[in-house]
Amino acid sequence: MSKGIPKRSDDYSLWYNELVKKADLAENSPVRGCMIIKPYGYSIWEKMQAAIDKMFKDTGHSNAYFPLLIPKSFLSKEAEHVEGFAKECAVVTHYRLKNDSGGSGLIVDPEAKLEEELIIRPTSETVIWTAYKNWIQSYRDLPVLVNQWANIVRWEMRTRLFLRTTEFLWQEGHTAHSTKQEAIEETIQMLNIYADFAENFMALPVIKGIKTESERFAGAVDTYSIEALMQDGKALQSGTSHFLGQNFSKAFDVKFATREGNLEYVWGTSWGVSTRLMGALIMAHSDDDGLVLPPKLAPLQVVIVPIYKNDEDKNAISEKALKIKLGLEGKGLTVKYDDRDTYKPGWKFSEYELKGVPIRIAIGPRDLENETVEIARRDTKEKSTRSVMGVEKYLPELLEQIQDNIYQKALKYRDEHITNVQNYDQFKQVLEDKGGFILAHWDGTTETEDKIKEETKASIRCIPLNQVMESGKCIYSGKESQQKVLFARAY
Amino acid sequence: MSKGIPKRSDDYSLWYNELVKKADLAENSPVRGCMIIKPYGYSIWEKMQAAIDKMFKDTGHSNAYFPLLIPKSFLSKEAEHVEGFAKECAVVTHYRLKNDSGGSGLIVDPEAKLEEELIIRPTSETVIWTAYKNWIQSYRDLPVLVNQWANIVRWEMRTRLFLRTTEFLWQEGHTAHSTKQEAIEETIQMLNIYADFAENFMALPVIKGIKTESERFAGAVDTYSIEALMQDGKALQSGTSHFLGQNFSKAFDVKFATREGNLEYVWGTSWGVSTRLMGALIMAHSDDDGLVLPPKLAPLQVVIVPIYKNDEDKNAISEKALKIKLGLEGKGLTVKYDDRDTYKPGWKFSEYELKGVPIRIAIGPRDLENETVEIARRDTKEKSTRSVMGVEKYLPELLEQIQDNIYQKALKYRDEHITNVQNYDQFKQVLEDKGGFILAHWDGTTETEDKIKEETKASIRCIPLNQVMESGKCIYSGKESQQKVLFARAY
Repeated sequence: MSKGIPKRSDDYSLWYNELVKKADLAENSPVRGCMIIKPYGYSIWEKMQAAIDKMFKDTGHSNAYFPLLIPKSFLSKEAEHVEGFAKECAVVTHYRLKNDSGGSGLIVDPEAKLEEELIIRPTSETVIWTAYKNWIQSYRDLPVLVNQWANIVRWEMRTRLFLRTTEFLWQEGHTAHSTKQEAIEETIQMLNIYADFAENFMALPVIKGIKTESERFAGAVDTYSIEALMQDGKALQSGTSHFLGQNFSKAFDVKFATREGNLEYVWGTSWGVSTRLMGALIMAHSDDDGLVLPPKLAPLQVVIVPIYKNDEDKNAISEKALKIKLGLEGKGLTVKYDDRDTYKPGWKFSEYELKGVPIRIAIGPRDLENETVEIARRDTKEKSTRSVMGVEKYLPELLEQIQDNIYQKALKYRDEHITNVQNYDQFKQVLEDKGGFILAHWDGTTETEDKIKEETKASIRCIPLNQVMESGKCIYSGKESQQKVLFARAY
Repeated sequence: MSKGIPKRSDDYSLWYNELVKKADLAENSPVRGCMIIKPYGYSIWEKMQAAIDKMFKDTGHSNAYFPLLIPKSFLSKEAEHVEGFAKECAVVTHYRLKNDSGGSGLIVDPEAKLEEELIIRPTSETVIWTAYKNWIQSYRDLPVLVNQWANIVRWEMRTRLFLRTTEFLWQEGHTAHSTKQEAIEETIQMLNIYADFAENFMALPVIKGIKTESERFAGAVDTYSIEALMQDGKALQSGTSHFLGQNFSKAFDVKFATREGNLEYVWGTSWGVSTRLMGALIMAHSDDDGLVLPPKLAPLQVVIVPIYKNDEDKNAISEKALKIKLGLEGKGLTVKYDDRDTYKPGWKFSEYELKGVPIRIAIGPRDLENETVEIARRDTKEKSTRSVMGVEKYLPELLEQIQDNIYQKALKYRDEHITNVQNYDQFKQVLEDKGGFILAHWDGTTETEDKIKEETKASIRCIPLNQVMESGKCIYSGKESQQKVLFARAY
C-alpha cells in the first residue's frame, strides 16, 4: 500500500517533508515559516520535554518564565551578542488595531505607536540578565539555576518543518555562578545531559565537542554542542551549551558580594535544545514506510488490531484484547485497542506503520482458537506468533530490545560514516561519494575554515572532546595542526 | 518579625502586590505590563498545569501547538469576535533590525516591512479554525479535541501581577463536533473540570453559571464561567467555557460530510484558564504572614528545620531529620531539610511561613532526647509536639486535613458572603457594608445591567446553574424576572 511518501533514496528531502505531514506531526501555517505542531507530533515533543525536564530538575534546576517581548535597546548591551545574532527578528511597533473609517476593515492605529520598539525574543539572555541584576546580591544567592520552556521567533528566510522555523519551541537554561570553574562544570554537565538524552531516549548517538570561533554563540566564551548524523550523511547540531564567562554579567552589571566581602562579576552559562530535536528523531530512524520511533518516546507503544468477519468473532477478540491491554498497561506500557469499524485491518496496519508505533499485535479467529497473537515489530518488520500467556512479560522486554536495536543501527551507520582523511582531495571525494563526518587536520584559522566551507559546503561541526591528540598538517593550508576536527555538511 | 507586607485590613491591594513579590512568586518586567514568573511562583503554576492537563487527557483531549503570530486579516473573519475583542494587541510590522549608519545603535530596518501586519495572538480561535478547515472533512474526523498551552498578549492599560498582565500564560481548548448537543456537553464538561480543579486542588469554592450577553466571549453563543470570592469581598472570574455554536465554522468555512453524506457546518467550543488562577489562589487563602498554599499545589509540603547550638547536636539532628525526610518522601510527600548555616532558625520559620509551606517540623536537642518533633501547621498556626514514631503515618493525614480546612474556611467565608436582596437600596448597602456576592432579581436587559454597573461598579458575574427558579421583580427597573442572578464587584 502506497502511503504517498517518496523513497529516501529518490529524494531524501522530499521524503522528510512528506513524512512529517503524512504522519500528522506538523504542517505549515498561513504565516510563512511558522508551523502547526499537530497532536501526534506534539505528544512526542511532550515526552521529550518530560524526560529532559526531569533531568534538569534532578540536577537542581528550576523553571521560570520571562517575558516574550524585549525592548530593542536591551539587544545592544552585549556587543558581540547583537553583532552576531539579533538582527532577524520580529519587531512590535504598535499596540492597537482599529476599524478603518473608510470601511476597509482593520488597520493599525497610528496613534498607538510604541515609544521604543519591542522585539519578540530570539533568545532571552538580555532580559534574563537584566532580572539577575536584581536577583543576585551575595554569594548566598548563587548559584542561580534557572530554565525556561518558551517559544522563540527568528526571522528565517528558508524554513523546513521542525528543522528551521521562524517560530519554534525550546528550553533555554540560564545559570549564574560565583566561580569560573563552577560555570564551566555546569556547561559540561548540561552538554552531558543533552548527550544522555539523545542516546538513551532518542536512540541517537552523538559526538560531543567544542565549536570553532566562527560557529560560537554570539556572546559566549565557548560553545559546546552535540552533533548527530542523519541517514543522508548530513550532520545535525542537536543541542548547545555555552560558557558565557563574565560577558553578560559585565554587560548587565551583575555583581555579587563574596564570602570575603569583595564585589565580583558572576559567571554565566546558557544552554538549549529545541523542537529541532523532532527533526533529528524523524530523520535519523525512519524508513520508506514511515516513522520509526524509539519506544521511550513513542506516544503509543503497542497497538492491538482485531481481525474479524462477524460480530461474534469481534466480541470474543475484544474480550481477549482488552485483557491483554489491561495487563500491559499494568506494566506501564501505553496501549491502544483499535476496534473501529470504519477502517479495515490493512488500512490500520499501514497507518500505525506510518506513525511508527513500535509493536503491533493482531488477533484473529485462529489466534483465539490457538491462544496466540501475532506480534509485529516496527523497526525490523519481523512478525512472530506467540502464546498469549507470555505476552505481558515478553512485550516490555521487546520494547527494550527495539529501543536498543534502533540505537545500535544508528550507531553502526554513524560509525561507518566517520572517515579519517589525510588530504584535501580525499576530503572532497569522501564528501561527494560517501558523506558523513570527516576527521581531518585543520590549522585553527577562521580563514581556512571559511574557504573549506565555501568550496565544499562542509563546515567544522566541532572539535571533539576526549579525542586523542595527534599532530599533523592542515588538509587545506598544510600548516601545523595539533588534532583533527570533525567536518560535515550540515542542516 | 515583620516581613514588610502590609496587613490585609489596612490595604488589601497593596498586601497582595507585596506578597507576590516578597514570596518570590513574580515581579514586573522592564516591559510595561509583562511579568517575570519567578521559580517559586512557576513551580506552583507547574503543579496546576500538571493537574489540569491530566484532567484534559483523561477526558480524551490532546495537546497541540499553533503559531504565535496571526495575520491581521484573520481577525476580521468572525464579525463579533473582532468587534468585541481583538483591538488591543501587539502588532508586528517589521522583521529586521540593522545598525544605524549614523551610529546611534540598532534601528528597525525600513526595508524589512511586512506586507501584511502580524498580530501576537490575543486568543487563537482564528488561526485554529483556519487549520480545522483542512483537518476536518468527514464525520470520521470528529470530534477534534485539542488543547494548547501557550502565551498570550493583550495590551492592557492597567495591569497587576497574575491578575491582569499584557502577556500571560494559559491553556486554550478548541473542539469541533458533529452535533450541537455534543458541543454543549463538551462546554459543560470543561466547566465542570474547571470547577473540580478549583475546589479539589486550589481549595477554592466556585459558583458555576452562564454569562449575560454583555459579558459573553465575542463570537460565542453562550459563555459559562466559574466565579470565586476573594477575601476582600470581590469576585474573580477563574475560568470560562464557551459554546461557539457554528459561528466560527461558518466564518472559516469548516464543513464535514455526515454519515449520510450531507455537508454540514461543525459545532465548536473553546475554554481556558490562565495564570490568573495564581492570583486567585494567593488572594483566596493567604494571610498577613504570607502565603497559605493548599498542600496539593504546594511545591514544598514539609520543611524540616534543625535547632542546634553545636556541631554534635547538628549531626545527631541531621541523622534523625534525614531519616524522617526519606520516610515521608516514600509516602509521596515533597520534603526539604534546611540545614543552612547562613540563616538562623527564626529567619527560616518566617521565610517558610511567607512561602506558605503547609507543615514545618522543628527538631532541637530536647526533641532528640524525647524522640519527638515539633509540628507547626501553616494554615492554623497550631503547634504540637509528637512522637517521631508516628510521623510518617500522621503527616500525610495532616496534609489532607489542611487541604480540607483551607477549603472549608474559604467555603464558610464565601457562603457567609452570598446575600439575597429584595431591592436596590439593600443592594447598594450590602455592596458597601459587606461586599461579596449578591443574589438579586434582574429584568434581563443589558440596559439595566449597564446602569447598575455604572452606579455601583457591581456587575452580573453569572446566572447560576442549577438554581431554583423563582419569579420576582427586577431590583432596578421593577420589571418581571424569572430568577435571581449573581452580582459582585469583580477583579
